[in-house]
Amino acid sequence: MTDSSRIYTAALIVIGDEILSGRTDDKNIAQVANWLGVQGIRLTEVRVVADDAAAIGAAVNALRTAHDYLFTTGGIGPTHDDITVDAIAAALGVGVVVHPEARAILEAHYETRGGLTEARLRMARVPAGATLIPNRYTGAPGIRHGNIFIMAGVPAITAGMLDALSGTLPGGSRMLSETIGCWVQESEVADLLGRTEKAHPGTQIGSYPFWRDGRTGANFVIRSVDAESLAACSRALVAGLEAMARSPIAGGI
Amino acid sequence: MTDSSRIYTAALIVIGDEILSGRTDDKNIAQVANWLGVQGIRLTEVRVVADDAAAIGAAVNALRTAHDYLFTTGGIGPTHDDITVDAIAAALGVGVVVHPEARAILEAHYETRGGLTEARLRMARVPAGATLIPNRYTGAPGIRHGNIFIMAGVPAITAGMLDALSGTLPGGSRMLSETIGCWVQESEVADLLGRTEKAHPGTQIGSYPFWRDGRTGANFVIRSVDAESLAACSRALVAGLEAMARSPIAGGI
Repeated sequence: MTDSSRIYTAALIVIGDEILSGRTDDKNIAQVANWLGVQGIRLTEVRVVADDAAAIGAAVNALRTAHDYLFTTGGIGPTHDDITVDAIAAALGVGVVVHPEARAILEAHYETRGGLTEARLRMARVPAGATLIPNRYTGAPGIRHGNIFIMAGVPAITAGMLDALSGTLPGGSRMLSETIGCWVQESEVADLLGRTEKAHPGTQIGSYPFWRDGRTGANFVIRSVDAESLAACSRALVAGLEAMARSPIAGGI
Repeated sequence: MTDSSRIYTAALIVIGDEILSGRTDDKNIAQVANWLGVQGIRLTEVRVVADDAAAIGAAVNALRTAHDYLFTTGGIGPTHDDITVDAIAAALGVGVVVHPEARAILEAHYETRGGLTEARLRMARVPAGATLIPNRYTGAPGIRHGNIFIMAGVPAITAGMLDALSGTLPGGSRMLSETIGCWVQESEVADLLGRTEKAHPGTQIGSYPFWRDGRTGANFVIRSVDAESLAACSRALVAGLEAMARSPIAGGI
């Protein structure tokens, strides 16, 4: 499924008042980002929006045409505050239908758990034209509509849905990275970083400072889709740090 | 600084390849969200964008006019990948200048730390017309330009900048909340939740399920700016859960 001739990009919409109120720490941005990286797809934008149909719809329509893939997390449960399906259907200009396979999955799941009530049947509703993403934890499936992947917000369930999608989406070359740590103030090596990146086209160097135990350090993350460029850039940075009598630490600090 | 007659909103732009690559778990969304809540300001949208001037500029211009306040985190250090100031200045159509007070702060901070090099002086650059946000940890200040607050990305430093801004921004009524936990499948109480919210205008009930030790539970978060509405809605939900022979747990599970 790898097409190294082009870059595949994705956006993520995290839907949920609980993130915007600060009640819940989001775990899905990092999880989706890491999973996409393995698929050879670059996460290039994330939006966190409220449980608000207009806000969800505006974000969906802004992002679905700008990227190869659009993922959403949150708002697909059985309660009144779960409005993602309706909001996305409205944004796409399609109706909402009960998906027969989703209904069958839920009927089986709830057979010994009190039956398929009206609230539970809400979780079989999809934008017309959608297919399903399996959910091995709690029955209620995720939803795919065109290039939009509508997933649960509970991170463990999101993880299961991502797992079900693994290897199924065309992607490009994976972004490779190496991390070099150093007990140095990043301002001391700013020139070296800029020069080294410039001397190695197709690479990027990110600089991430930290303060620990009264000491200052930084991790430098070198990224490239090309293994040779990555290695050359890393070697040059290590040599540059050593020339300044700084000890680079492979793998980071 | 409280004006309860209207709702104040804010947006946040998290700037950083390290978040989008999944390397770093964002901590600033929850931190900024909680801080804004205390100020009586509602965080209504977050965007995470790459270290890319066009992406930063587009997000800034989309959000700064749509909200009372716009906050950014990340990209204001001394290295080549710190492009936030330039990107925001370009988006605003203003130049970049060295802020004399920022320069003086950095000169003092680095006096015993190797002096104010060219790289360090980068951290005194601001969009023309800006004022400073103090940074008690590492000297390099944050930046305020109109309703835009440009802050560091390292969470501890962001925290210090937020602390410096505490109580200085006009806000509205604080959103109050109560959490009620229950060992129940949310699908069993979906009707109760929807009815209870509807019966108490000005309240919202969020339902957050979890699975723990083989059991299913949910926390219900009731929110309102009005303490009496909040209390009445909470009482009604507790009574409803008790009427279903479910034991509500005040404060959540």
